[in-house]
Amino acid sequence: MELTLELPGSPPRSSRVRIGEDILENLPESLSSRWEGSRIFWIWDRAVHALWHPRLREMGWRPSSEDEWILFPASESNKRLSQLEELARRLVRAGADRRSVLVAVGGGVTGDVVGFLASVYMRGIPHCQVPTTLLAQVDSSIGGKTGVDLPEGKNLLGTFHQAHSIWMDIRFLETLPPEEFRQGMAEVIKTAMIGDPSLWEYLESHSEDVRSRRSESLLRVVSSCCRLKARVVEADERESGYRMVLNLGHTVGHALEKTTGYAFRHGDAVAVGMAAAARISLNRGELSMKNLQRLESLCRFWGLPTTLPGGSPPDEILAALSADKKRFLGVNHFVLPRAMGEVTVRSDIALEEVRDVLRAMSSS
Amino acid sequence: MELTLELPGSPPRSSRVRIGEDILENLPESLSSRWEGSRIFWIWDRAVHALWHPRLREMGWRPSSEDEWILFPASESNKRLSQLEELARRLVRAGADRRSVLVAVGGGVTGDVVGFLASVYMRGIPHCQVPTTLLAQVDSSIGGKTGVDLPEGKNLLGTFHQAHSIWMDIRFLETLPPEEFRQGMAEVIKTAMIGDPSLWEYLESHSEDVRSRRSESLLRVVSSCCRLKARVVEADERESGYRMVLNLGHTVGHALEKTTGYAFRHGDAVAVGMAAAARISLNRGELSMKNLQRLESLCRFWGLPTTLPGGSPPDEILAALSADKKRFLGVNHFVLPRAMGEVTVRSDIALEEVRDVLRAMSSS
Repeated sequence: MELTLELPGSPPRSSRVRIGEDILENLPESLSSRWEGSRIFWIWDRAVHALWHPRLREMGWRPSSEDEWILFPASESNKRLSQLEELARRLVRAGADRRSVLVAVGGGVTGDVVGFLASVYMRGIPHCQVPTTLLAQVDSSIGGKTGVDLPEGKNLLGTFHQAHSIWMDIRFLETLPPEEFRQGMAEVIKTAMIGDPSLWEYLESHSEDVRSRRSESLLRVVSSCCRLKARVVEADERESGYRMVLNLGHTVGHALEKTTGYAFRHGDAVAVGMAAAARISLNRGELSMKNLQRLESLCRFWGLPTTLPGGSPPDEILAALSADKKRFLGVNHFVLPRAMGEVTVRSDIALEEVRDVLRAMSSS
Repeated sequence: MELTLELPGSPPRSSRVRIGEDILENLPESLSSRWEGSRIFWIWDRAVHALWHPRLREMGWRPSSEDEWILFPASESNKRLSQLEELARRLVRAGADRRSVLVAVGGGVTGDVVGFLASVYMRGIPHCQVPTTLLAQVDSSIGGKTGVDLPEGKNLLGTFHQAHSIWMDIRFLETLPPEEFRQGMAEVIKTAMIGDPSLWEYLESHSEDVRSRRSESLLRVVSSCCRLKARVVEADERESGYRMVLNLGHTVGHALEKTTGYAFRHGDAVAVGMAAAARISLNRGELSMKNLQRLESLCRFWGLPTTLPGGSPPDEILAALSADKKRFLGVNHFVLPRAMGEVTVRSDIALEEVRDVLRAMSSS
């Protein structure tokens, strides 16, 4: 399957997404012929490289002699400017110039760091993404958001820099630990909830097929998520308005990650955040009890939490909310579900409404 | 005087430049009313702050109570990502959010670092520039190039991020040490050489007025340079072609800075680079001997070098040239002067031509 995002903003004007179970075979050749005359620098998450390199050799990967492979230990703890600088220095020493192209092979951290690096290396060079986790395939590799963390919070520095092309081979998902798969499923559920009722029904009716990672199920899930995300990003590349719908579950989610010192993982936090948003919506009479239960039940199937973890007092989460970078002029924008596949963005949510819901989720 | 750059590319679509000798008086009020509802974070070169703060108080500067002033030691040696990160962390702790605005007060390093910071802080916030050196006023503050250095070379990381507005008060130039003024004059001479024959004649006929920093001379020089730079940047914001003319003298200049470990300063290096470009042009029969002599004589008036410094062997400079980031596919683009106010860009310059000229400049 192939998708093209048309992006009116900054170059490149479009971003091509390929999704399939045979995407890897000719990747080096495809990139070499697309970028003829340029050197290609592959930047790998070291762990992905260790796992996949033997298999890619079997597939006949013969990167051009001009190419460079650079491995680095991708992890949330070194998603920092110092890591970006280290990679930049390796690029300079290996001779990367303004015409060079970067290819990020790895999960969300790899994509975010390499995308950021591409956007600032010699004031911007092209890059491509090869996302290897469910989270990266269904969410972070599409849309051009790049970033690194500060000790004060996640993704506080970054750019909008679209990948020229994104290559998603679902075979990468076969080797993904269940824990990682679950983190990605939170974003899948979020995506369905935002605007894809048919994906939502598929998730309910084919949950076992997805869990056993059947190819056709993975293809269905990944391509539906990419299609929706592409539509949202095309409409609002720079998150000046509509793109905020993608933050369903992320307002409370980010606050929760922060108060737990990021011990609570992103997908888990988003699941709790979605449950909180759904309860606020329920209290406002905008979402039915049945739909709240459907959300909670699907999360439970995947082992995703829908209540606050022990040791996370609602008041601490409320305090962290007010430091959220998406807060404009002191007003938190909340994305609220109204049905499976329909959301609304509200800025009139009172702190008390959030507090009530967090307290209920804390005792339940 | 007021100039507006129309920029079709990334936001902001335009950048306003104000030039005068009374620009400072109402600056805090102007910015506060333009950015009503936003907090303004002034980031000062510590040395400029020490020199100018008392005088600005006398002028009645009353920054709003919402504003924050952040001082940092701007210098080429800490024009690095670690400095940018430190400033970002201070912004987060002081509560800067996506609607905040940065104002850079200082010379080229301050403008480059703060511009870069603005372009990546929470994926981009607006910024304004208050350039305080001749170099920053006539060159680096206009055009949206931002950057920091790597140990491997200058400005290897950066972005294109236009300032919303640029405020140039020529009174800052009164307190500039002669050495700093000279560095800026190299870019003034370059600008005249590129495309302003009338500025060139003015520089020849009014050199003493400029040297004694008479207001009307400074205004004439700064505004002519800004006008030309604005025209070039409007035509080619991202340096895909025409903007390269601004690199007159910078090809050999950068190589020279590099081989001397940046002990040789930028303006001085550009002067040597211009002389080299002029000699290449002379050897090709594209520039008259008389015009080469006019260039060398004006540089001499300002104490700018036009021959290689001792201990800089031509072959080392040639080696550094081949690592220049503006090299595309192995071809160096050279900007060559053809007359006072007229240049051409050539990519067919043989290394031998450069070597011949550097040898001549080394023994003369």
